[in-house]
Amino acid sequence: MQLKDVGEFNFIRHIQNDTIHDSSTVITGIGDDCAVYRATDETDQLISTDTMVEGIHFSFRYMKPYDVGYRLMTANLSDIAAMGGTPRQIVLSVAAPEYVDTVILDEIYRGIKAQCARYHLNILGGDTVRTEGPMVWTVTIIGEVPTGTAIMRSGAQVGDIVGITNYVGYAATGLGALSYNLDGYAMTKVGHQRPDPQIELGQQLRQLGIHSMNDISDGLGSELNEIASASNVSIVIEEKAIPLHEETYELAKYLQTNPVDYALYGGEDFQLVFTAPKALIPKLESLSGITIIGEVISGPCHVQMVTPDKTIKTIEAKGYNHFHES
Amino acid sequence: MQLKDVGEFNFIRHIQNDTIHDSSTVITGIGDDCAVYRATDETDQLISTDTMVEGIHFSFRYMKPYDVGYRLMTANLSDIAAMGGTPRQIVLSVAAPEYVDTVILDEIYRGIKAQCARYHLNILGGDTVRTEGPMVWTVTIIGEVPTGTAIMRSGAQVGDIVGITNYVGYAATGLGALSYNLDGYAMTKVGHQRPDPQIELGQQLRQLGIHSMNDISDGLGSELNEIASASNVSIVIEEKAIPLHEETYELAKYLQTNPVDYALYGGEDFQLVFTAPKALIPKLESLSGITIIGEVISGPCHVQMVTPDKTIKTIEAKGYNHFHES
Repeated sequence: MQLKDVGEFNFIRHIQNDTIHDSSTVITGIGDDCAVYRATDETDQLISTDTMVEGIHFSFRYMKPYDVGYRLMTANLSDIAAMGGTPRQIVLSVAAPEYVDTVILDEIYRGIKAQCARYHLNILGGDTVRTEGPMVWTVTIIGEVPTGTAIMRSGAQVGDIVGITNYVGYAATGLGALSYNLDGYAMTKVGHQRPDPQIELGQQLRQLGIHSMNDISDGLGSELNEIASASNVSIVIEEKAIPLHEETYELAKYLQTNPVDYALYGGEDFQLVFTAPKALIPKLESLSGITIIGEVISGPCHVQMVTPDKTIKTIEAKGYNHFHES
Repeated sequence: MQLKDVGEFNFIRHIQNDTIHDSSTVITGIGDDCAVYRATDETDQLISTDTMVEGIHFSFRYMKPYDVGYRLMTANLSDIAAMGGTPRQIVLSVAAPEYVDTVILDEIYRGIKAQCARYHLNILGGDTVRTEGPMVWTVTIIGEVPTGTAIMRSGAQVGDIVGITNYVGYAATGLGALSYNLDGYAMTKVGHQRPDPQIELGQQLRQLGIHSMNDISDGLGSELNEIASASNVSIVIEEKAIPLHEETYELAKYLQTNPVDYALYGGEDFQLVFTAPKALIPKLESLSGITIIGEVISGPCHVQMVTPDKTIKTIEAKGYNHFHES
């Protein structure tokens, strides 16, 4: 069935089921001019918005519709994770051509709802409209942190260590393997198609008292430059400390590329990069999935990397920029 | 200059100026993974999202880019007005083709920012992405009301009067005049191109203690049916009580159409329709721009209209549905 046969209103009614996963904060969900929810004096509210366009941010060639919804939510959840927050509410908007098969929309919603259920997140509203172009999905997410505790990218201090969560370059490896139609690469293909946000680690890092944090959506190079620039410090990392998955080494060997480039410039990993005082190292090491890759020094807001042969490279802020993609 | 020459990051930097109009609630605006704002125990939070697609919801044939931004904000502000709320924050997302002239984007932003400045609304974040289709603009708005006082569409009670603000059918008249390329119709053409939300009246009506409210974005017929259905009541209105502008009568005469149809099915007026206890009539009459057009009766959730010759018509919920437009 096509969207034009169902109609906007009926489709919205259809997707209203299974939208409230934590009713304690919701006064009214979907169905009025606005939804109404309750915040408290003990929390600060976090807000972020992300848009995914068919053909630019996702392709049904490499991703199932379910995965598109799943990853759209991960991108939004990752922004909350990067502040050390707890996700609470979303609203979403979809512009879709009227000839689109509603099975595709249903599957995208199923991916969105799976992530919402997992994180007890409410879908409080939406807008479904017609377009004559490719599908455009926008999610706005609201989260919260205890008052005054949001972790900004501007908080890095000279002497901090630089840490990251899990693997980086992972999603880019999976996308590369899919693009070249390679067998194998089972882990990183899933990493591209169905990445997960680091909500729990983000909260644990906030509670430990780290100084600054970003999520790695645009590549480690770009995100480190963001922290250096916002905090007015320099960052130096060690190439061999960057945690790469064995599939990344395998792909780099096959394509004769430099494996660390997947981490620096790959994007869409939705891991976290942070800086923290050295005194936290023992506590950081007790968390699973944390690797220390460098430190914060004084200097002119740039990012440098020490290679295995001890040469120093400046890492540019180039990353995943959808207006400059080739 | 085209968007592809400027780049997403530079364009976002460029539009960050002049985004905070009430710093008292903002901890961090644009520039981190999330913005951070503060809500209080004394308020409930309102949230709504609206999307406008080039060629569907607006056309540069009838509207200047500035007006597109202005009206996008009005549509969002109107949702807050319909709850009796005060608008506080927005995030916005734009998907645009890379060949778009940045002057057009700048002008749309100028329209958005004008409404934000007028209502002391902060722009807390955004996403600018590339599309190969028409422009898609999405605004998510956050507002607030004193705890427990949001006016729902489900609150209508038998015995209530039905009231509306200012004129209805006004924007549709202007659009009609523009479509037929008619001279004159100066007031209603502006009503289509640059409509205003009824924030102050919405707040005044909430403070008076009205029972239910909707904004009239999809035509009076559709909105009255929404109230009747959500409140499980019937509504009866009097055709000759509906306040139509003289330009609506003029256009209807010229096109040999029924003037009241512009009000019932026209849409995009961003006026308010509400129900209130009869005891409030004197106070309602002291507000400027309020007209009483009918009453709430018991019955099977439908809307009827008494014509000047005393026949009774059932008013269908048909309105402005972008998936069913001809």
